[in-house]
Amino acid sequence: MVQYMTSRLDGSFAALSDATRRGVLEQLGNGDASITELAGKFHMTLTGMKKHVGVLEQAGLVTTRKVGRVRTCALGLSRLADETAWIEDYRRLWASRFDALDKVVEELKRKEEVDE
Amino acid sequence: MVQYMTSRLDGSFAALSDATRRGVLEQLGNGDASITELAGKFHMTLTGMKKHVGVLEQAGLVTTRKVGRVRTCALGLSRLADETAWIEDYRRLWASRFDALDKVVEELKRKEEVDE
Repeated sequence: MVQYMTSRLDGSFAALSDATRRGVLEQLGNGDASITELAGKFHMTLTGMKKHVGVLEQAGLVTTRKVGRVRTCALGLSRLADETAWIEDYRRLWASRFDALDKVVEELKRKEEVDE
Repeated sequence: MVQYMTSRLDGSFAALSDATRRGVLEQLGNGDASITELAGKFHMTLTGMKKHVGVLEQAGLVTTRKVGRVRTCALGLSRLADETAWIEDYRRLWASRFDALDKVVEELKRKEEVDE
């Protein structure tokens, strides 16, 4: 399996492991939004939303810019390419593993038929 | 965006957010292994590895069976289909968002040229 940037994968999968954070990404896919708007949309305190945005920002999934007192959030540069690649590798591995098991089962069945 | 089983996505992305757990999945893709074997391979205590395997088991990514005193781990039934679907949706959203921004930038450039 290809070696990916371990710490980056850790951070982005952790960022995706929360429904609110995934919701924020979906929301920002429709347009930029301020922390206040996001907090309102997800029925959270400003402090709570700031934390979530911080996790997403760390993972490169969100960027923020502050104009006056308003911090606006936008989608970041990460398009989850490495994460997709890891999962695709895993799915290939998974499929070949289960194909191999299928073959073992079929082999056993055939043996059983011969024994009968 | 499609609504996925939120709690399941939470669990599986959290399970994938650790390099050792991703390593265990890759390892089990090559063949079943006991907790002891996995602990040895990843230079961990049995207790530490049991915890990781527990997280993977909860997420449906690993199954275990105990014969005598040995607990053997195998890949579970989850092939990360919903997780892949979520990420693919996100990537589509991301691309259309950045395409839209590209258009705005081009529009501004054109306007600038006309103004000059």
